[in-house]
Amino acid sequence: MYFATFEFKGEQRLGAFLNMGEGIIPIEKVFEEIGMQPPKDMNELIDSVDDKTIEVMRAAIEEKGLQKFALRNEDVKLDAPIPHPRRNIICLGKNYHEHAKEIEGTDVDKGNELPSHPIYFSKIADPAIGDGAYIVFDENVTREVDYEVELAVIIGRDGIDIKKGDVQEHIFGYTIVNDISARDLQAGHKQWFRGKSLSTFCPMGPYILHKSAVDYPVELDIKCAVNGEQRQNANTRDLIFDIDYVISDISRSMYLRSGDIIITGTPSGVGLGFKPFKYLRSGDVVKCEIENIGTLTNTVATV
Amino acid sequence: MYFATFEFKGEQRLGAFLNMGEGIIPIEKVFEEIGMQPPKDMNELIDSVDDKTIEVMRAAIEEKGLQKFALRNEDVKLDAPIPHPRRNIICLGKNYHEHAKEIEGTDVDKGNELPSHPIYFSKIADPAIGDGAYIVFDENVTREVDYEVELAVIIGRDGIDIKKGDVQEHIFGYTIVNDISARDLQAGHKQWFRGKSLSTFCPMGPYILHKSAVDYPVELDIKCAVNGEQRQNANTRDLIFDIDYVISDISRSMYLRSGDIIITGTPSGVGLGFKPFKYLRSGDVVKCEIENIGTLTNTVATV
Repeated sequence: MYFATFEFKGEQRLGAFLNMGEGIIPIEKVFEEIGMQPPKDMNELIDSVDDKTIEVMRAAIEEKGLQKFALRNEDVKLDAPIPHPRRNIICLGKNYHEHAKEIEGTDVDKGNELPSHPIYFSKIADPAIGDGAYIVFDENVTREVDYEVELAVIIGRDGIDIKKGDVQEHIFGYTIVNDISARDLQAGHKQWFRGKSLSTFCPMGPYILHKSAVDYPVELDIKCAVNGEQRQNANTRDLIFDIDYVISDISRSMYLRSGDIIITGTPSGVGLGFKPFKYLRSGDVVKCEIENIGTLTNTVATV
Repeated sequence: MYFATFEFKGEQRLGAFLNMGEGIIPIEKVFEEIGMQPPKDMNELIDSVDDKTIEVMRAAIEEKGLQKFALRNEDVKLDAPIPHPRRNIICLGKNYHEHAKEIEGTDVDKGNELPSHPIYFSKIADPAIGDGAYIVFDENVTREVDYEVELAVIIGRDGIDIKKGDVQEHIFGYTIVNDISARDLQAGHKQWFRGKSLSTFCPMGPYILHKSAVDYPVELDIKCAVNGEQRQNANTRDLIFDIDYVISDISRSMYLRSGDIIITGTPSGVGLGFKPFKYLRSGDVVKCEIENIGTLTNTVATV
């Protein structure tokens, strides 16, 4: 099942659907049918929908003909599935071998050499932007803006000291995040947080795909193209530290919360990996794609 | 005016008082008197109390005899003023010259040499712990636990691209944070986020002191003692990047939100600065103190 946050007639709404292209069923219709109070935003939806509820929802959609309420995709404007994440996004640096290699020796890499442990940092993503929204930057603040397609794991249940075998129970689903990065700020401030947290630097979406529709371990093709030129192309099976490892490792002595978003690192092919660098410029169109989750397309602009 | 989050008869409550030692007036009494809906937690209080409301509250306490409702300090248990910060805490690394010098050449310092720009990173502080609560760590996760007393600035109003002259308007008040740090995780994971975010690693309090009671720029003595031995002793006037600089700088192209907490860095005298290192051990008592804000005392334990 897919979940979306969207605007329809000027109002922000939630929706669900079973198969790509079938239109989006307003969430109220589904929750009314199953006798639950509809959530007011995606964070509440994630809190209230457990694995059993998903099956009840699916059955309601299939058997009660809820499809007739679906809005057509062309009639809605997608927002980020979680437009205001409760906490910062947890990020992994250098989690694909080829990517670790391509940025070796750059200013961003200095002091962050290929890890024996995962490199974790965080990113403010409030607001996160949806498919079709503009990535906007100010050339007085940064001139080295880069793209990074990443598989995002959305936590569905609070936990601490989560064992590898229990990781899947704590996952709600998956989406795409384009972890836009100001390379000059990353390098200039040493720690990466600042260069990752600019406004509009977190395109997310287009939808959340519930974990029940994804084989585990997750092996999905992941790609990014800029102006139609393929730049990144890999599969999430190539992660250095996989989802089981990352969630069990980072939750040691640290709480993960329902609604948390963990982005698992980017494959090779980022702008910083080219010589000369291929940073984003006003007018560039960045298209991120993960198999089954969809495509997330954003255009770059400057103020 | 001071604001506190505390437990009384098993319930978490909010309170206010004008002068240290006078007891804590339950917030409902104050809000009823001024004709406003009482907030349900400190985040809501910060959202709803602007500079003008503070004056109205102060007048109500002084003129309407609200002091008679005050609970005695010995009858309440303090929690962190903001037990569940909405977002990660924004932290500054190496923002006192003497501290920058003392950790030079250590593993934590590698790749993070003395900055020409502030070093920003973030810390999960959910839950934050209050005065008197235990700092607990697991020796299987970390063996190098360190203290860092810091002045915490609490944001009271959303903002982006905040000019230096407007910084004060966006501040709600100040408190103390002891930025507990697992030095081995900081160094092992390169980026500092992970080693800063363990559960119980954010003692905060004892109170929030509203900005109206603090001269600006902020020049307050700041100290930390471990088992009665003075380790840190400085004044916030010694900050390399001051509050005006930090808030105007980090808000460039990045949203700060009401309820955000920015901790401004620690003075010299941390455990990492000694040879041999003086890390925290089970049973140690850490006492942080900032002039006028109060003292924040926590005992260390291992699981």
